[in-house]
Amino acid sequence: MIELYHWEPNAASARVLIALKEKGLPFESHYVDVLAFEQHAPAFLALNPSGETPVLVLGGEAFNEASYICEYLDEAFPDPALMPRAPIDRWAARAWQKYVDDYLAAAASDLAWAAVGAQALKARDASGIEAAIARIPMQERRDHWRRATLGLGEEALDKARERIRLTLQKTEADLEGSDWLAPGGYSLADIAVYAYLNYLPRIGPELVGERTAAWLERMSARPAVQAAEAMSRTGDPYGVAAPGPEPIRWG
Amino acid sequence: MIELYHWEPNAASARVLIALKEKGLPFESHYVDVLAFEQHAPAFLALNPSGETPVLVLGGEAFNEASYICEYLDEAFPDPALMPRAPIDRWAARAWQKYVDDYLAAAASDLAWAAVGAQALKARDASGIEAAIARIPMQERRDHWRRATLGLGEEALDKARERIRLTLQKTEADLEGSDWLAPGGYSLADIAVYAYLNYLPRIGPELVGERTAAWLERMSARPAVQAAEAMSRTGDPYGVAAPGPEPIRWG
Repeated sequence: MIELYHWEPNAASARVLIALKEKGLPFESHYVDVLAFEQHAPAFLALNPSGETPVLVLGGEAFNEASYICEYLDEAFPDPALMPRAPIDRWAARAWQKYVDDYLAAAASDLAWAAVGAQALKARDASGIEAAIARIPMQERRDHWRRATLGLGEEALDKARERIRLTLQKTEADLEGSDWLAPGGYSLADIAVYAYLNYLPRIGPELVGERTAAWLERMSARPAVQAAEAMSRTGDPYGVAAPGPEPIRWG
Repeated sequence: MIELYHWEPNAASARVLIALKEKGLPFESHYVDVLAFEQHAPAFLALNPSGETPVLVLGGEAFNEASYICEYLDEAFPDPALMPRAPIDRWAARAWQKYVDDYLAAAASDLAWAAVGAQALKARDASGIEAAIARIPMQERRDHWRRATLGLGEEALDKARERIRLTLQKTEADLEGSDWLAPGGYSLADIAVYAYLNYLPRIGPELVGERTAAWLERMSARPAVQAAEAMSRTGDPYGVAAPGPEPIRWG
């Protein structure tokens, strides 16, 4: 039996939830409340010392890193395929996933945090937060969370905005003459990018090109995507309806 | 015919050179002199806008990102296999490659740059360097190179040292009862980690555990590794013999 430790169906958690739903695989869901810092509680750190969701547990093994959980699922449960067949097209799908891991994920996370997360945190009992951060093993990850709870600052947000703009140029380019991001059809590349870009209705709709907007609609219409999003505990997995400060300025 | 644009057989360039040699694949070598900033020259940026080596060219397509070039080669030219067979072991090999991409590569690069690169740069005509940096499309990559040429500072080097220490704990743990890092035999995981850790004879031999030291020797003895390292233009691909400042302090 597959078990999945995940947060709301957005970002990295959404990637694995959508892949599981596309495969039609049953699994036991364990909700990890990231805004309550449950990902830094000892029980979760025993599963994943880096304190990051999602984690998939199967056959006594705990797997982390969304890109590689998804590749594992596609290899262990090949039908329906979520990667192209041709090696060159598989490279393109993986290059998109790596771009998400290296650039898009942090940018979308920083902007989402600034717009919604920091606000949501104020509604929580914050007494345990510093203790939770102190349990993270890697200094730079502790620094990251301390910065995030204090407010990221304009320099970090400028960097995030530039990354989102470059991402939206890449999606528009790759969607020219194609319904999906990688050659060879719908793939883990689409799932990975959607899991972050679907937040854009809030953080910058004016940046979304015509082809990217149509692709976001195609993604949202997929039954597997809808089934994953229906697992939201808040009913608003992308924080689009949540109260927050003014929308982010892009000018 | 495969073409490879690469620097010295260290870091990301070594990963692809070793994989090509393990596969016995002939290829045309194009040397990109990173210390002369040739990776930011217009001709190279046309191949890879991010200005990073290596780039593999095949059938009119240019491929970047060492992890994904290597996975492509393993899928397009399956014999001998450089990935385990079982999906769960493939996950482990990929998780190591991602750890290299996300943590080890930058740490080893920063330490190597501080010990050798900045010194080597002084021997060059530096007049074109700022112009080369100005051609990099992404602001944060421009900032990175400006910081690197000015000197990275103790905070960055502390972070790098912590990452190296954590990496060497991981290698010792995974090499317990195994000759290779991922279950299922020699793989792209070993190639990826070796391409960075082989620099350690210079930057911190006292940190290397017994199992990791024996693994480094097994790696160095492989004919494919030796063939890749023989492609060095400087004769010292890891900068171990190059003159430089004092060895990095780890205490």
